[in-house]
Amino acid sequence: MSPKAPNLKSVQKLFKPKKKKRPSHKIGLPPGSLVFTGDKKQEEVFINLITYDENEFYEENIKLDQLDTHLKLQKKVIWIDIIGLHDVELLEKIGNHFGIHKLTLEDILSVDQRPKMELFEDYIFSTLKMIQCPSPESPIVDEQVSFVLRENVLLTFQEKKGDVFQFVRDRLQDPKRAIRQRGSDYLLYALLDAVIDNYFIVMENVGERIENLESQAMIDPDTDTLNSLYLQRREMMDLRRSVYPLREVIGSFGKYAEHKISPEVRPFIRDLYENTIQVIETMEVFRDMSSGVLDLYMNSLSNRMNNVMKVLTIISTIFIPLSFVAGVYGMNFDNMPELHWKYGYFFVIGGMGLAVIGMLFFFRWKKWL
Amino acid sequence: MSPKAPNLKSVQKLFKPKKKKRPSHKIGLPPGSLVFTGDKKQEEVFINLITYDENEFYEENIKLDQLDTHLKLQKKVIWIDIIGLHDVELLEKIGNHFGIHKLTLEDILSVDQRPKMELFEDYIFSTLKMIQCPSPESPIVDEQVSFVLRENVLLTFQEKKGDVFQFVRDRLQDPKRAIRQRGSDYLLYALLDAVIDNYFIVMENVGERIENLESQAMIDPDTDTLNSLYLQRREMMDLRRSVYPLREVIGSFGKYAEHKISPEVRPFIRDLYENTIQVIETMEVFRDMSSGVLDLYMNSLSNRMNNVMKVLTIISTIFIPLSFVAGVYGMNFDNMPELHWKYGYFFVIGGMGLAVIGMLFFFRWKKWL
Amino acid sequence: MSPKAPNLKSVQKLFKPKKKKRPSHKIGLPPGSLVFTGDKKQEEVFINLITYDENEFYEENIKLDQLDTHLKLQKKVIWIDIIGLHDVELLEKIGNHFGIHKLTLEDILSVDQRPKMELFEDYIFSTLKMIQCPSPESPIVDEQVSFVLRENVLLTFQEKKGDVFQFVRDRLQDPKRAIRQRGSDYLLYALLDAVIDNYFIVMENVGERIENLESQAMIDPDTDTLNSLYLQRREMMDLRRSVYPLREVIGSFGKYAEHKISPEVRPFIRDLYENTIQVIETMEVFRDMSSGVLDLYMNSLSNRMNNVMKVLTIISTIFIPLSFVAGVYGMNFDNMPELHWKYGYFFVIGGMGLAVIGMLFFFRWKKWL
Amino acid sequence: MSPKAPNLKSVQKLFKPKKKKRPSHKIGLPPGSLVFTGDKKQEEVFINLITYDENEFYEENIKLDQLDTHLKLQKKVIWIDIIGLHDVELLEKIGNHFGIHKLTLEDILSVDQRPKMELFEDYIFSTLKMIQCPSPESPIVDEQVSFVLRENVLLTFQEKKGDVFQFVRDRLQDPKRAIRQRGSDYLLYALLDAVIDNYFIVMENVGERIENLESQAMIDPDTDTLNSLYLQRREMMDLRRSVYPLREVIGSFGKYAEHKISPEVRPFIRDLYENTIQVIETMEVFRDMSSGVLDLYMNSLSNRMNNVMKVLTIISTIFIPLSFVAGVYGMNFDNMPELHWKYGYFFVIGGMGLAVIGMLFFFRWKKWL
Amino acid sequence: MSPKAPNLKSVQKLFKPKKKKRPSHKIGLPPGSLVFTGDKKQEEVFINLITYDENEFYEENIKLDQLDTHLKLQKKVIWIDIIGLHDVELLEKIGNHFGIHKLTLEDILSVDQRPKMELFEDYIFSTLKMIQCPSPESPIVDEQVSFVLRENVLLTFQEKKGDVFQFVRDRLQDPKRAIRQRGSDYLLYALLDAVIDNYFIVMENVGERIENLESQAMIDPDTDTLNSLYLQRREMMDLRRSVYPLREVIGSFGKYAEHKISPEVRPFIRDLYENTIQVIETMEVFRDMSSGVLDLYMNSLSNRMNNVMKVLTIISTIFIPLSFVAGVYGMNFDNMPELHWKYGYFFVIGGMGLAVIGMLFFFRWKKWL
Repeated sequence: MSPKAPNLKSVQKLFKPKKKKRPSHKIGLPPGSLVFTGDKKQEEVFINLITYDENEFYEENIKLDQLDTHLKLQKKVIWIDIIGLHDVELLEKIGNHFGIHKLTLEDILSVDQRPKMELFEDYIFSTLKMIQCPSPESPIVDEQVSFVLRENVLLTFQEKKGDVFQFVRDRLQDPKRAIRQRGSDYLLYALLDAVIDNYFIVMENVGERIENLESQAMIDPDTDTLNSLYLQRREMMDLRRSVYPLREVIGSFGKYAEHKISPEVRPFIRDLYENTIQVIETMEVFRDMSSGVLDLYMNSLSNRMNNVMKVLTIISTIFIPLSFVAGVYGMNFDNMPELHWKYGYFFVIGGMGLAVIGMLFFFRWKKWL
Repeated sequence: MSPKAPNLKSVQKLFKPKKKKRPSHKIGLPPGSLVFTGDKKQEEVFINLITYDENEFYEENIKLDQLDTHLKLQKKVIWIDIIGLHDVELLEKIGNHFGIHKLTLEDILSVDQRPKMELFEDYIFSTLKMIQCPSPESPIVDEQVSFVLRENVLLTFQEKKGDVFQFVRDRLQDPKRAIRQRGSDYLLYALLDAVIDNYFIVMENVGERIENLESQAMIDPDTDTLNSLYLQRREMMDLRRSVYPLREVIGSFGKYAEHKISPEVRPFIRDLYENTIQVIETMEVFRDMSSGVLDLYMNSLSNRMNNVMKVLTIISTIFIPLSFVAGVYGMNFDNMPELHWKYGYFFVIGGMGLAVIGMLFFFRWKKWL
Repeated sequence: MSPKAPNLKSVQKLFKPKKKKRPSHKIGLPPGSLVFTGDKKQEEVFINLITYDENEFYEENIKLDQLDTHLKLQKKVIWIDIIGLHDVELLEKIGNHFGIHKLTLEDILSVDQRPKMELFEDYIFSTLKMIQCPSPESPIVDEQVSFVLRENVLLTFQEKKGDVFQFVRDRLQDPKRAIRQRGSDYLLYALLDAVIDNYFIVMENVGERIENLESQAMIDPDTDTLNSLYLQRREMMDLRRSVYPLREVIGSFGKYAEHKISPEVRPFIRDLYENTIQVIETMEVFRDMSSGVLDLYMNSLSNRMNNVMKVLTIISTIFIPLSFVAGVYGMNFDNMPELHWKYGYFFVIGGMGLAVIGMLFFFRWKKWL
Repeated sequence: MSPKAPNLKSVQKLFKPKKKKRPSHKIGLPPGSLVFTGDKKQEEVFINLITYDENEFYEENIKLDQLDTHLKLQKKVIWIDIIGLHDVELLEKIGNHFGIHKLTLEDILSVDQRPKMELFEDYIFSTLKMIQCPSPESPIVDEQVSFVLRENVLLTFQEKKGDVFQFVRDRLQDPKRAIRQRGSDYLLYALLDAVIDNYFIVMENVGERIENLESQAMIDPDTDTLNSLYLQRREMMDLRRSVYPLREVIGSFGKYAEHKISPEVRPFIRDLYENTIQVIETMEVFRDMSSGVLDLYMNSLSNRMNNVMKVLTIISTIFIPLSFVAGVYGMNFDNMPELHWKYGYFFVIGGMGLAVIGMLFFFRWKKWL
Repeated sequence: MSPKAPNLKSVQKLFKPKKKKRPSHKIGLPPGSLVFTGDKKQEEVFINLITYDENEFYEENIKLDQLDTHLKLQKKVIWIDIIGLHDVELLEKIGNHFGIHKLTLEDILSVDQRPKMELFEDYIFSTLKMIQCPSPESPIVDEQVSFVLRENVLLTFQEKKGDVFQFVRDRLQDPKRAIRQRGSDYLLYALLDAVIDNYFIVMENVGERIENLESQAMIDPDTDTLNSLYLQRREMMDLRRSVYPLREVIGSFGKYAEHKISPEVRPFIRDLYENTIQVIETMEVFRDMSSGVLDLYMNSLSNRMNNVMKVLTIISTIFIPLSFVAGVYGMNFDNMPELHWKYGYFFVIGGMGLAVIGMLFFFRWKKWL
């Protein structure tokens, strides 16, 4: 009956706390300073190397000094997947090796970077969020993933193991797949496509959460519903910050495609762009749905209040007048003739009964019952 | 009197549940994978072929292998209408036959595709939603329909039997009609026009539904009203996702018209574009109306609450003071002179009567009665 | 006291019901089908012909077959005003006579056409709504009026008798007026100007209605206020659909003016454009005012509720404790010393009086009284 | 206690009634008709003439026929300030004298003209609102002021005496001022700058009013607060209609500057443009603040309601159960043993006291007290 | 229990009062008048001079007349930092020395200038707000800082001592830093970057404040919460006025970079631009969060109200009927058989007990308890 402190614990399990935008310890450093702004999520940094052409496929976890040997093999495509960003020195070496601009390295390390795609003289750089939410009950986990495409070499940078690229790796192993025929630009496309595809699963799960909140708001709203809804909306604000810039990112990709990407890959980028639009529009629909749920909740609440008020009114309206009558005949005046009638009491009780019946009809007529 | 669980059943008959955006089982497949993402709505796939020129008209349900024979006849226009999308292999064959890009075929099969129109080297591709809602009481049924226009051949792909093209077919059979004089581009226009025309009927019925909700909210609002309104708004969100991209779709059509469409068809496309704008503006009006209905409903509700409160207040204000007076004369003090007056009781009763009359005038003056 | 069913009758006299967007009976017809989509508002179709140059002015109601005779006279300007659209055949003949495109004729006949201006090879076509609302108490009546300007001939198409062009006709009869010096393009401008000018009167009256609602919402709000407000907003939605496209319409007029309109008329078109902007901005102001009135109304309502609650609270707070005291001394315990005090009763009554006075001061201090 | 009719009188002193947009008596007149649409605000029309160059400065109130004499003097700059617009004939003569287009004259006379700047062949025309609001307590007074710049002659048209140009006139009298070195274009700039500068004072005062409303809404909200707020918002709607077009007006000025304005004046126009943007942004902030004040007010109101309800609940919760107990021992059953206990009465009274104390602690714990 | 006057004092410590937009004492002055519009924040004006190239670094507080000596040394970069703006004469001398336009000087002195960047013939001028908010509990302090970049000289103008440039100064002292290799354009970039970087700290602290308000609104909302929220929103309005124009400012910087900035500095400007976007997007998120907090607060409040109402209803519903029964048996009719039953009293008391238990179950079933 008390205004319950909302059960925040149970809700927070689902919605992870929002991360700080940009850590203060970076302030004051010159631009291009390489500082990893995220949390160290694993001990070691892995370098996973995949090289392939139509005929061969080779995958190995290598050390940095082995890199040269592999680059000399001159395969059609070389994909170097760096997993773990906390070893800044290693990243700097890789950056030097491939002629990556200091600012690009800084972007790779700043894990709260806004998604973007930039064209440098020698390479295309892109960074975006890889979001995972395997079920409606699990929290949304995001991770920054960066891409550097330089001729036949594609570098990817992830924060930790576990990604959405497994399907692409599987396809690469099958020599009959079209991907084996194509170049590093198609590989970049395929990985971006895997990231965006995964957004659809996240959207599905977020959608299911909103629908759950919706039924809750319709059938059985309580304080937690609104708090959940509020946290849901904050989660979606975060999500929007990952999703909305994608339009621009993939749009730029399409633009650069004119110069840097082989013509046969271009229709795929257009397709990717449309998927992105679809993700963004779904976000918009979710936004509208959320505010609809809020209306529903408010209505349920005020409806309940209404019902409580009606009960109070009905009880008061019936019994207060009756109590008055009882009070009247409880008065101690010497001369109250009714008190001495033989059936006075029964008349009064009967009259009261009739009044109750009358009022019940009245309430029924008013549709209060 | 209890906060009724809203009667969802009755509402859901009208508003069909929203479909998933993109089925998870497509995730991980390479781009261009041909997977039908909808529900199989009929057993067989029909291929309906219509060929015509000024002089002749021919219609038949054919098998795939009969196609070549008909294509050789070199009629002015060949319309191949594929009804049913679940036979992916068949579609692949047709795609190969007419040189349709894998991504186009994927779009045809992904029945939650965003409406679009694309210009490929050899053909124009368009996909949009064919929406049907024959009466205000019937649910909105949508179906994806795709068009591929390649020279004198127009391919259309529908999910199931039953479409809005019957009027066009009827006109085609009449040799005096202008449509028989014109090419496949005019046929594409005519079919798009039929689809858009049908949106007007849907709009009419949606409008009627909103007007019903409106009268309900004004005259006799209950919990269901808001839930219906909420579902109505969700339905309109879905509808908007089908309708809004049309501006762009038909706009692109107009743009491509410069190159690919014969000059005499262009004014018709402009006309079609204006119809589309009209549909979109109607959607906007509906959106405003919906939020107006919400205001009305909320007002009705708070008005009722107000009335309930007034009843409570009137009853309490009249009887609580009277009860107090009765209570006073029910006290058992030895020395209460009034009790022994001969007409004490009648004075008190009379006084109470006057007080009631006074208060009724007061309430009347306050306009509470 | 009951939640009154709002007095819809009285409100609906002012706000006419919204017309259907596009009649279903047109669906399925080929584009360019000539079907009059409005209501037949008069029996006959009138063709009013006015010809004039600097020296002569001639006006007559003619029959279609007399038209040629008049056209041969080669006056500087010929204005043919067709009043009544239901005689489709007649319109078709006129269309053929002046080389009007089928789609243009269709637009003329579809009386729910969105306002537009189109440049055809031989003529300029424009259609818009002529709105009349002579007083704040009268409903808004709209009528579609279409213009076809072809060289020195201006065709106008109206649904029924009674228009806003009378002032222009009067000016035409006066040979000293500038309009007699100028061509058919200036006549078109003058008629459009008359239509837009009339919007200002409508705006004035709509503004007055909103101001009435406003005083009502401030001084004496009831359920009807909100319903009226709601209907007012719907009326404005309708109005906006007539008004907003005008920006584009007159804007196009300005654009076409570069080629088709004589240079001396151009500044007038710019002036007309600015008037249109002014009408649109007034609509925007009305929109804001409407939502302001809603806030006012809601505030008045909740203020009233507040006052009702205060009355209830004051009455209860005063009498419930007093009744309790009376109840205490109505108890029948054998040993209640106060009952036997000589002035017990008077002490209690006096104490109650003091308590009432104290509470009244308390409420005054709280500003509840 | 009654729902007070808001004290409109006191509020209306501050907020002047909104003027009609466009007087109906102009409807039906041909374009370019010269009708003064404002109220005649003074008897006479004054023509104030100022001529100056680096060396000389001359100011005089002249008659129209003296104009030629002064124009012949061929000073560097001639500023003719016409104060009072109701003498249409005089204005027409001036118009003819300087070759001003009929439509320009019409704009000068229509005192509800939307602010604008237009480039004619021979002159630049601009009209805007000169707004004055010397203190937060005084109403906002606006007046239309028009400018015609034609070579070295600047004509200004005001509705009545009293303007914001006095500072400019003072500077003109000082031969050392830069303004004496510069041409008529700089004079136009200086006057426009004076008008815009004055907007800042108005903004300051409007800002102070909003802040007053804000403290009122926080500390001591009553019905008048909302009505004032509502009127404040309407005032700002009016103000916006004067202010928003300024961006376009001064923007056009900058554009025309390329051709018609001497290069040294151009940076000043850019500066003026930025001031205009600042005024517009301040309006936007005020808009947000207004809606914030509304929230504050609504909160204060519902907070009060809450407190009223709490009082009612506390009183009822304490006394209703106690009254029940008293009622029980007021029953007249023959066999009620407690009544005959010696200290029954005192036990009951004591028990009641304890209950009250308990409930007070309960309420304290609930933070209701 | 009374509607507490909100504790404004405690809140105002955190949120400083908004400054006036533009001081009225500037009105009437000619454009380019040099008047310092801020508050004098320190006694003296300091001129801090830093000169450096790859090899040497020199810093000194100088007097104006020493300036020439230093300028003659022809170091690679000269940074003159003027701290304190109230000595208008001094500023005018500096302005003359470096050929700064009067309007630029006016902008430097008008401390409520909108952030901007302008390209003059000889120099780039920029002005923006340097905002400091070292902790979530401290108020936001802003200060206008202006930059004039003219060849190898960078002038900065601050209102008072204490800035965010210390990190840059430290880096300048280290000869190995890249900044010592680069020109004055890089120095300008580095200072702008320091300003923008500091916005991130402010954002972090504002974010924390909003989150505090959020927990307060969820857990323990009172009147102060809304007032704080309201002041928070006003603070953010102010902040937005500093932050939003930055997009344009840094955008212009990027545009001018094409001509005036050395190519190696350009990628840094792009990076700076993206940081600016991120700040702006964070502001947007905060805006959404604020309105979310408002919803939460309103919900908490109405939830409390609901609970209060429930208590009232439960107490009334239980005791009013019971009191009625007690009242009935307190009536003084001669013939009331129940009164004379031996266990009548106990039956009645027992019946009342059962009724209470029944009602408690009823409330439990209704989930009111």
